[in-house]
Amino acid sequence: MNADNRSLPLIDQDAGRRPLVFERIGIVGLGLMGGSLALAARKTWPTALVIGVDRKDVLESAVVLHAIDVGAQDLDIIGEADLVVLAAPVEENMRLLPHLSYYLEKPVVVTDVSSTKRAIVEAARALPPHITFVGGHPVAGSARSGIRAARAEIFDGRRWLFTPDPEAEGESARAALERLERFVEALGAVPGTIDAAGHDRVMALVSHLPQLVASAIMEVVGIAAGEEGLSLSGTGLGDTTRLASSDATMWAGICRTNTGEIREAMTLLIDRLSELRERLDEPGKVEQLFAAASGWRRLLDEKTGKATRE
Amino acid sequence: MNADNRSLPLIDQDAGRRPLVFERIGIVGLGLMGGSLALAARKTWPTALVIGVDRKDVLESAVVLHAIDVGAQDLDIIGEADLVVLAAPVEENMRLLPHLSYYLEKPVVVTDVSSTKRAIVEAARALPPHITFVGGHPVAGSARSGIRAARAEIFDGRRWLFTPDPEAEGESARAALERLERFVEALGAVPGTIDAAGHDRVMALVSHLPQLVASAIMEVVGIAAGEEGLSLSGTGLGDTTRLASSDATMWAGICRTNTGEIREAMTLLIDRLSELRERLDEPGKVEQLFAAASGWRRLLDEKTGKATRE
Repeated sequence: MNADNRSLPLIDQDAGRRPLVFERIGIVGLGLMGGSLALAARKTWPTALVIGVDRKDVLESAVVLHAIDVGAQDLDIIGEADLVVLAAPVEENMRLLPHLSYYLEKPVVVTDVSSTKRAIVEAARALPPHITFVGGHPVAGSARSGIRAARAEIFDGRRWLFTPDPEAEGESARAALERLERFVEALGAVPGTIDAAGHDRVMALVSHLPQLVASAIMEVVGIAAGEEGLSLSGTGLGDTTRLASSDATMWAGICRTNTGEIREAMTLLIDRLSELRERLDEPGKVEQLFAAASGWRRLLDEKTGKATRE
Repeated sequence: MNADNRSLPLIDQDAGRRPLVFERIGIVGLGLMGGSLALAARKTWPTALVIGVDRKDVLESAVVLHAIDVGAQDLDIIGEADLVVLAAPVEENMRLLPHLSYYLEKPVVVTDVSSTKRAIVEAARALPPHITFVGGHPVAGSARSGIRAARAEIFDGRRWLFTPDPEAEGESARAALERLERFVEALGAVPGTIDAAGHDRVMALVSHLPQLVASAIMEVVGIAAGEEGLSLSGTGLGDTTRLASSDATMWAGICRTNTGEIREAMTLLIDRLSELRERLDEPGKVEQLFAAASGWRRLLDEKTGKATRE
């Protein structure tokens, strides 16, 4: 595959109406996020060139799904891109960073879609000045993974957080952030900024802790209750463990790049559960927990609206 | 309100076709479960008399919703019932047991719909011989509570577990169980039997633990992340904490009547989370957890089918 046999743009009612923010968009890693981004970008800007980098079988799926215009298994193909999005698991993205300058010789904006930000933002400080990196995190997802789960609509109404590096102040960093914000807004997302450390602290609580607990509870209950026990469960266990089918490789990387914050969040929960275990039969104790929890739950519904009603 | 001004039965295509299993069904407590049972019974047997006992405002709602034929605030009204269903929180049901013989003078079947069974089955051993108690637990529910959340369809395709007491062997106990199984089957549920202690052990794992963890995680994340942090969460936290708005009184009673089993289930999870916290950055550890958890999660989907897909 090469840039000459790109497929025809899909018919789209907005075709040509939206001004191009980037002309040649290189996406490295076409999983759920990269694939959805590719679909959304092609839909939004039929005249832009969407370039994918991944394994051969993934590229074939991406072409069949009309997610990319061209694709290749190595980074040579993104040499002309004016936007590069790193959409592999976070540690893979970090491993790629030092190699980018070999392929990208012209001024280029680079972002990523990883769920942890501090580690990659620090690693990106070593990039040469013509490569302007701004960390990004679309707060969207699914317990499913891979290009076949990708959907252009996944970003609709969702936050897309950027973590500009205070040590990278300057005109090109500001301009890159502004372009990225316009880019994701056109894709339907709601852009926002947050510092990388604050991002990782909050995500340890609202995302990483629930994920690990969902997996741990599914494992211990499965082992202790067995097949027969599971068959007696109502909908509650299913809700609480919906995340338990999430992608292992992605989450292992998240845990290794946000270990400290996740440990602190786990400690909060372990301590609370340990206290509760001792006081389960004390009058008023469980009632107190439920009153507080349902209050926070109402607030969560208010704050996330669509996100939790789906 | 009294039995003379019962409202007209609703039009139902099966009206009169199903043989009556019980003619006068007394339901004590018209919350989510009692209310849903009342609606389902009236829909299934328009010629049966459905009698409700609850507070005045709840009775008014029950009449408006066509859930009951007659209602009263005290137990006098169920004196003629041939089935009495205790549908208050479990401790309230247990407090009522010793008073039943004052109101029920004729042979009668009594069951309950509480989520813990060992304590109430033991308490029911003190009932006089003309009152035949068989513990019951419809494995259905909702994070919502109260008569306004009641739906006749709540039992469709769900397990309804009975816990016949081995110490109450005899013809009347066997006959009562057989009638109750026919009764709930006609309501759309799938009847089954299990010993009370085994029931409470399994439910501590597949129901009580997920509930307490959902509440605890919502509380600690709410406090630590605050309003602003919650607004950055995706769908994962919402799924994991969907149970956090459950009814406090009901759950406090469950915790006090199944303390030992719940403590053991909590210990399994606390130990697993504590181990995981130490080994978060160890190669392969998180991957191992995710592989096991997603395997159990697939099995849960298979075993519960409809229950977790909803």
